[in-house]
Amino acid sequence: MDEKPVRIALTIGDPAGIGPELAASVLAGGAPEGISLYLIGSVPSLKRCLPGRTSEGIETATAREALDRGFEAPFPLAVDVAGGIEAGNGGPSAGGGIVSGRAVELAVDLFKEGLVEGIVTGPVSKEALRMGGYPYNGHTSMLADLFAAPRCEMMMVSDDLRILILTRDIPLREVPAAVTRERIVDGAAAADRAVREFWDIGSPRILVAALNPHAGDGGVNGMEEIEVIGPAIDELRAGGVDAVGPVPADTLFYRWRDLGGDAIVALYHDQGMIPFKAGGFDRGVNMTIGLPVVRTSVCHGTAYDIAGSGKAEPGSLRAALELAGRCCRVRRKKSMV
Amino acid sequence: MDEKPVRIALTIGDPAGIGPELAASVLAGGAPEGISLYLIGSVPSLKRCLPGRTSEGIETATAREALDRGFEAPFPLAVDVAGGIEAGNGGPSAGGGIVSGRAVELAVDLFKEGLVEGIVTGPVSKEALRMGGYPYNGHTSMLADLFAAPRCEMMMVSDDLRILILTRDIPLREVPAAVTRERIVDGAAAADRAVREFWDIGSPRILVAALNPHAGDGGVNGMEEIEVIGPAIDELRAGGVDAVGPVPADTLFYRWRDLGGDAIVALYHDQGMIPFKAGGFDRGVNMTIGLPVVRTSVCHGTAYDIAGSGKAEPGSLRAALELAGRCCRVRRKKSMV
Repeated sequence: MDEKPVRIALTIGDPAGIGPELAASVLAGGAPEGISLYLIGSVPSLKRCLPGRTSEGIETATAREALDRGFEAPFPLAVDVAGGIEAGNGGPSAGGGIVSGRAVELAVDLFKEGLVEGIVTGPVSKEALRMGGYPYNGHTSMLADLFAAPRCEMMMVSDDLRILILTRDIPLREVPAAVTRERIVDGAAAADRAVREFWDIGSPRILVAALNPHAGDGGVNGMEEIEVIGPAIDELRAGGVDAVGPVPADTLFYRWRDLGGDAIVALYHDQGMIPFKAGGFDRGVNMTIGLPVVRTSVCHGTAYDIAGSGKAEPGSLRAALELAGRCCRVRRKKSMV
Repeated sequence: MDEKPVRIALTIGDPAGIGPELAASVLAGGAPEGISLYLIGSVPSLKRCLPGRTSEGIETATAREALDRGFEAPFPLAVDVAGGIEAGNGGPSAGGGIVSGRAVELAVDLFKEGLVEGIVTGPVSKEALRMGGYPYNGHTSMLADLFAAPRCEMMMVSDDLRILILTRDIPLREVPAAVTRERIVDGAAAADRAVREFWDIGSPRILVAALNPHAGDGGVNGMEEIEVIGPAIDELRAGGVDAVGPVPADTLFYRWRDLGGDAIVALYHDQGMIPFKAGGFDRGVNMTIGLPVVRTSVCHGTAYDIAGSGKAEPGSLRAALELAGRCCRVRRKKSMV
């Protein structure tokens, strides 16, 4: 077994949100075993959240220094990208967006330089990113852009439940037209590859949700199952993907284990997120697949309203770190075979 | 406290499905306390499911006799409406549909004669009903027709979780147009009345789900929250209903208790049924509100494929009986005030 720690860039997220206290809580509790961390963001915000004198023992560097130190970096290393910029309090600000955006840029640079294998992102605000000059819908579109990987997919992970969300933040009325045969084939194939690559499951079964009640009930409640989803599944199976469905969505999410599912393709945001969150998502992780880097994220927002109150739960961030570490190790092992 | 038992008509459902064995299991275990049962359907099918000589102690009657006996009926009373008709095996048949339909008709007659306070329905097949000359979508539309109550609503109940399903078996692409301000106002007001009438909750709070991801995110992900759902909620509040929302659907179903919800209005089938079933629906009940009679139902189908195998779980039927009994008692109490 490979004993070398996995190096991960953890972006702290918006300094005015709960990111700094979550990162501090991870530092205070010790990073998950076998992981060496770069913590990237506003280091003053991070230090304000560290209990007592803990912060004195943590080395800090600028972005330039972190890149120059290369493999000589001590861990954990806190990397400041704020350079004196302060975020507003209790809400989105240009300063918060600039720090959020710079942290992601540096994390990508560290990966491109071969210094990290994974990126874990803390919570940012779309609005703050825009105010700071980063006109993205969020991390996923920003990373897709920086890596020139336009077809990446979002997968929600909680223990062995893996849900790929096929269409994301679009109005419900646009969903039926957006769920094309090509999108389903691409999404399910990406889920298949991800489960093989990151979980080392040899012959994964991919369950594809139906769009309409009772999977359209033979056409009475909608034709998409017959005209679009069924043919997509046939195409996937012909291409060697063990795709199964369309499964009525209300059955799927309580029977996926019985059906032998290794991953689920949900056709639209709420279809996947309702059961994911209802299932207890304090250990839930948002994972991007289709990027060259292993990337996981907390599955909650900046929660500006509770920042600093001590109410924020670090479970999702810790789970995101553990999952990134595990996926990087599986990937290493597979690349050595 | 009123000690008089509640009389309930239990329709056994399709003789070829799991209805007879579920009814037999309820009989064998004893009807829930304080409930006197008419069991209506194919009595030969029921008797075949009763263990050993249990059936010898059960009185039977024809539909006519049951009506004529009036308050002199012994309980439980098995009422045969099959009259020698046999259902097909393992699937829908005209015979199964005729027996299913006649049972519902008799249950309604018993209510109209003042002989029962509630109706609990076992599983039927839409297809069998049609083959048998009952061109209904299911129980709810048949009862709405027999009672001339076209505006009844479907509410899923599991312990203190109550979800009204606003639009039911329609294609997803028709949902946005079907979710009108008027429908939301009607549905939420019906939920409000039901919670007051059947659970005796004085000032219920009704949570209304959003249609789009993140409740439309201020219009970026859809306009229905601003143009339709928000105004419906304003109208409800002005009319004295404590309606709250639109609540993002992925948040709603794991936070409804924190939000103080006594009932939830889900805008479409899967939005309500996914979390309802994922939450463990072996005790789930389907309740129709807006009828003169208290009516509950199992929340599963005929399960032709497992009929007779002993795999069918009677939890939902028992829960439906208990809920009907409880609702009838609350109604009695309120009518006496």
